[in-house]
Amino acid sequence: MNHDDFLEAYLKDRKKIVEEALERYLPGKDHEPRELHGAMHYSVFAGGKRIRPILCLAAAEACGGDMAPAMPVACALELIHTYSLIHDDLPAMDNDDFRRGKPTSHKVFGEAAAILAGDALLTEAFVLLSRAEKVRLAAERRLAVIQEIAQAAGIAGMVGGQALDIRTEKNDQNIAGLTETHRRKTGALIMAAVKSGAMIAGASDEKISALSVYASHIGIAFQIADDILNVEGDESLMGKKTGSDAVLGKVTYASLLGLDAAKVKLAQHIEAAIAGIAAFDSRALPLRVIARYIMERKS
Amino acid sequence: MNHDDFLEAYLKDRKKIVEEALERYLPGKDHEPRELHGAMHYSVFAGGKRIRPILCLAAAEACGGDMAPAMPVACALELIHTYSLIHDDLPAMDNDDFRRGKPTSHKVFGEAAAILAGDALLTEAFVLLSRAEKVRLAAERRLAVIQEIAQAAGIAGMVGGQALDIRTEKNDQNIAGLTETHRRKTGALIMAAVKSGAMIAGASDEKISALSVYASHIGIAFQIADDILNVEGDESLMGKKTGSDAVLGKVTYASLLGLDAAKVKLAQHIEAAIAGIAAFDSRALPLRVIARYIMERKS
Repeated sequence: MNHDDFLEAYLKDRKKIVEEALERYLPGKDHEPRELHGAMHYSVFAGGKRIRPILCLAAAEACGGDMAPAMPVACALELIHTYSLIHDDLPAMDNDDFRRGKPTSHKVFGEAAAILAGDALLTEAFVLLSRAEKVRLAAERRLAVIQEIAQAAGIAGMVGGQALDIRTEKNDQNIAGLTETHRRKTGALIMAAVKSGAMIAGASDEKISALSVYASHIGIAFQIADDILNVEGDESLMGKKTGSDAVLGKVTYASLLGLDAAKVKLAQHIEAAIAGIAAFDSRALPLRVIARYIMERKS
Repeated sequence: MNHDDFLEAYLKDRKKIVEEALERYLPGKDHEPRELHGAMHYSVFAGGKRIRPILCLAAAEACGGDMAPAMPVACALELIHTYSLIHDDLPAMDNDDFRRGKPTSHKVFGEAAAILAGDALLTEAFVLLSRAEKVRLAAERRLAVIQEIAQAAGIAGMVGGQALDIRTEKNDQNIAGLTETHRRKTGALIMAAVKSGAMIAGASDEKISALSVYASHIGIAFQIADDILNVEGDESLMGKKTGSDAVLGKVTYASLLGLDAAKVKLAQHIEAAIAGIAAFDSRALPLRVIARYIMERKS
């Protein structure tokens, strides 16, 4: 099997496993209050790439762990990611009517339900992280994972990054400022996904440290790739219009560096990510392949 | 010291201790992003009664525990309560301009910052609950507390209750429906406050079960007292106008039962709460006094 075939089969398989687990963990959409469960389901199953849970599972396996104990953690990361998208799309924030080609939560369910669905998904992530599992896992380890994820989602991470991102007077007019915003807004949760998978697997500090190098580079790479796609992506593959960053005058890696230099920077981060985990054996193949996917993805 | 003097001194003392701890746990309001830290501080220090953290500490002490290990849990409960107030006040929800006599978060900082401040407070509560403490406490116990609080704040509790409360076609036209809405919206977090304090103190299942009876009754009592105050409270003491429930046509215990029967029901719940912890020794005096305070409070 060549690289592309492996990647496609791997991502498809993992996406399916993660979505089956999400179905198991989320209460059915007919539970009361139905409007809230309905809104949660709508956004959780709106067709994401599941990249955070897949990274968490891949990191666990790269460290010799099983997928099963990492699955609630992987799904909690996806619930947190989904909540952040719902709240980011709200009229008071980015005011987006569509995401992944579908109407956003507040367009379908109204603003109040969208705010509450986000609140509920964030909270249920911590229910999932803390609840008694059939899988036996040291409480210390689970507590450390909760701390890692809460910090990544909190003010030092994702929420703080979103606050920086919606500033009228931005401080990201240069690469350092832009990178700091994205490190918090998207990088922190990607970092937590990789580290928590390794922590669940009981990885050594040395391995976790190597994986942190990997995660910090793919976090930035993910955003650079997004910015490049927004300039020259294929609209039919992406399910949304390109060029919106330029129309809105958004500062991006593409606008700051130019398209060619942005591509060079992207490739450098991917190489650095893969180099960071050079000491890992073949069980880290999925992590290496995912890094390449981040660079080469078309949507 | 008579009952009223003890109560006043006790609540004042505990409020001060809790607020000092909140100051220690929250990052300073000048941290970046300042707009977000500022909004978090504004609402956390807007003058709440701190009843949830005080209940948590009192439950720990009633079970023979110290206050210190319960303090991060007590403060996390207050952060969650504060987040829920900020989001409930949003234009898309209850659209309230004032709370405790001060402009609400979105009136001061704008909607986007208010949404994010709520998100951040909810998330930081779990940072606080999961972070390594100087106080040594079994990880299993801390994990159980996180689970208890996450479930109480989540869709089975507070968020679910808020969704029921903002329904256009409410199902609370009778006492059973109204009680179910309030059990989730406010009762669940009060229950978690009492139970988590006991859990931190390492209380027996029997004691936790007795405290749950106490908590379920004061949870309902708290809401009945609120409804009565909305009819006949002293506006100058409450810092807000009375009669708003009647103007809005809200279904309340007062509107469903009538004022006199609501007062009888309130007294019955307080008696039942105190009876629930009859087997506790004098260390449960604060819990008994708090129950009376809920009935007798003027604001």
